[in-house]
Amino acid sequence: MAIIVQKFGGTSVANAEKIRKAAQKAAKAHDQGNQVVIVASARGKQTDQLIADAMELNPNPPERELDQLVSTGEQQTVSLLAMALETMGYDAISLTGAQIKMLTDGAYTKARIESIGAEEIHRYLDQGKIVAIAGFQGIDSKGNVTTLGRGGSDTTAVAIAAALGAHQCEIYTDVDAIYTTDPRIFKPAAKLEEISYDEMLELASLGAGVLHSRAVEFGKKYDVTIHLRSSTEDKPGTIITHEVPKMEGVIVSGATVQKDMAKISMVNVDNKPGNAAKIFTHLAGAKVVVNDIVQTEVNPKKANLSFTVSSADLESAKKAVNQIKEEIGCEDIFIREDIAEISAVGVGMRSHYGVAEKMFEALAQNEINIDSITTSEIRMSCIVDEHQADKALEAVCYAFQLDKPVDARTK
Amino acid sequence: MAIIVQKFGGTSVANAEKIRKAAQKAAKAHDQGNQVVIVASARGKQTDQLIADAMELNPNPPERELDQLVSTGEQQTVSLLAMALETMGYDAISLTGAQIKMLTDGAYTKARIESIGAEEIHRYLDQGKIVAIAGFQGIDSKGNVTTLGRGGSDTTAVAIAAALGAHQCEIYTDVDAIYTTDPRIFKPAAKLEEISYDEMLELASLGAGVLHSRAVEFGKKYDVTIHLRSSTEDKPGTIITHEVPKMEGVIVSGATVQKDMAKISMVNVDNKPGNAAKIFTHLAGAKVVVNDIVQTEVNPKKANLSFTVSSADLESAKKAVNQIKEEIGCEDIFIREDIAEISAVGVGMRSHYGVAEKMFEALAQNEINIDSITTSEIRMSCIVDEHQADKALEAVCYAFQLDKPVDARTK
Repeated sequence: MAIIVQKFGGTSVANAEKIRKAAQKAAKAHDQGNQVVIVASARGKQTDQLIADAMELNPNPPERELDQLVSTGEQQTVSLLAMALETMGYDAISLTGAQIKMLTDGAYTKARIESIGAEEIHRYLDQGKIVAIAGFQGIDSKGNVTTLGRGGSDTTAVAIAAALGAHQCEIYTDVDAIYTTDPRIFKPAAKLEEISYDEMLELASLGAGVLHSRAVEFGKKYDVTIHLRSSTEDKPGTIITHEVPKMEGVIVSGATVQKDMAKISMVNVDNKPGNAAKIFTHLAGAKVVVNDIVQTEVNPKKANLSFTVSSADLESAKKAVNQIKEEIGCEDIFIREDIAEISAVGVGMRSHYGVAEKMFEALAQNEINIDSITTSEIRMSCIVDEHQADKALEAVCYAFQLDKPVDARTK
Repeated sequence: MAIIVQKFGGTSVANAEKIRKAAQKAAKAHDQGNQVVIVASARGKQTDQLIADAMELNPNPPERELDQLVSTGEQQTVSLLAMALETMGYDAISLTGAQIKMLTDGAYTKARIESIGAEEIHRYLDQGKIVAIAGFQGIDSKGNVTTLGRGGSDTTAVAIAAALGAHQCEIYTDVDAIYTTDPRIFKPAAKLEEISYDEMLELASLGAGVLHSRAVEFGKKYDVTIHLRSSTEDKPGTIITHEVPKMEGVIVSGATVQKDMAKISMVNVDNKPGNAAKIFTHLAGAKVVVNDIVQTEVNPKKANLSFTVSSADLESAKKAVNQIKEEIGCEDIFIREDIAEISAVGVGMRSHYGVAEKMFEALAQNEINIDSITTSEIRMSCIVDEHQADKALEAVCYAFQLDKPVDARTK
């Protein structure tokens, strides 16, 4: 008997009617002879409401308590889902992160999964029950409630699929598929039928925002195919899976723009071994997630070092670099918050020439100045002025024909 | 260092302002050199809202899922209380029923406490933390969330006080004290400074509704004095404690009326040993709480048996008695839902004559018909027509001078 994991996001369980619809999808899969696990997020704007309640009492709430608070949202959804299934004649049970022994590290608000008590889930599935599991949450080794960070329910779903040996995890959401870029910014964006984990990772981490990147990492690592699809329409969405040869024919699969970011430049840092390590170890200690790093030599003794962080981490990052400034002989620190990063992503980049030229040319033709450039094996990113961000994305999209389905593009 | 347990009900934590006030009370007790534990209920109408959410999906929700759902309300309150204390400069931690290992039996929606992990709480208190514990909830031996039933947070508070060796438990509520009767029905009701556990048990179980009876039982059993007081005004309320000799001078301490009840009469039951046991064992199996029982012999072979239950248990009770009807030779079953029970309670009844006469006379003078009468050592109850209930209570109150403080009554 196959195991299917279905994940429903907050908008897909926002009210009783939507919870009923989600329950119906699970029931249908159960009727088809599958063992079914549902993973759900908090209803609609519940998490935001709880955070607002917290902020009203304490503008800087302790993270342990914040996790204890917001984890209730998912617990509510799954018990309601179980109730909806019961009234439809199905045997169902809801389980919290603590109840499935979803063990994580102790990093409140952005914990990482260490293990899952799969036996317990299998036991209920073998009893014929549909199991509804609270997403987003776990417990640390001391029993404190932890959460996996925004979008963490995706990660819960794929991790549970992996732990149960399920080969597919369905992520139901309010978008019907992944597009070549954000259709809210670039209207002609084309739908993607299939995308590789690596491309999705580059797109997700750069702000595509429809799927949590750790979920994709889990999928890649444990061989779980992710099917991202619409919770309202019954049609296929986008399959995220291992890279297949035909994907290489596509030079650029998608493009993204990330706006909530800042760039920190450290000027005239002592250019000696170990200094970069010192800085980034220190930043990691302050739990700052560093994105792109660029270092250039000024002279044999000094170098300029810059990196980007999300706006949410900027305050922590500022504090951390100021603490370490003198130790590494840094003469000045500049911060730019008015920037955005445009990225083009595609596994085909590995085997094709001319991607950089095409991208720079597209930006130049639109009179967009490039602040800095970084690349990875399958990604090319440019930092531009924030007010030119949308125009820059559009230029890149047209340059790589991201307004057309893959088959319709000219070679 | 003394340990103080403070319990805040739903109305006392209904919004941010009230949560802050509750936190201030805990902080004050901490400043005075005490180790402080807070036990809190769900905010305002949260529990009702969650139950309404459940009913919208399933008019008869599985009790396990209902407990899983509503227990989130208290979890939210205690994390918010901890946040409020942190921002006031106090070290605080919130703990759920699962986290303090509040083990209960598996009777969802009305579980009974079996044990509490006091060591964990002591450990946090010894670290100087104010500990905020979610009331109302526990877990069974399998880790399922259970709740103690409406008002269960009182029981949590007193049970925790007992487990920690605290001698007093403060229950903060929206009434400022216990009165001789419900002031909403009998306006001149007088405030009680002190009342014995036994009197309070009779008053609470009969519907006084300000304090959960199991909390009083715990207090009596484990020698925890309960101080019921106002959450808004800083003045003493009512102390519930062991009986002291001077209490005996008061014949009737309080009077109550219970309206949400029904009476089940089983006619011509075979009058043989073991039949009553059969009926009530069967009702207990159906988790029906039976109140007063009256049996009268019709002839040597047949007896009439009647008992009262709360309206909430009526459906289960009906089903149970119909299942067992033939086995015990019962010829007919009558049900009255239009009744109310008026009770007068006082430890002084044990040593005083004429209480029954005075009560019946008061009812007769007001032309109130008595359906049936039951008594205990310190209680006298009459069942009357529901539409005459308030009038009956008033008559009884005036008869026993319950409009006057104890010292002002004529002997």
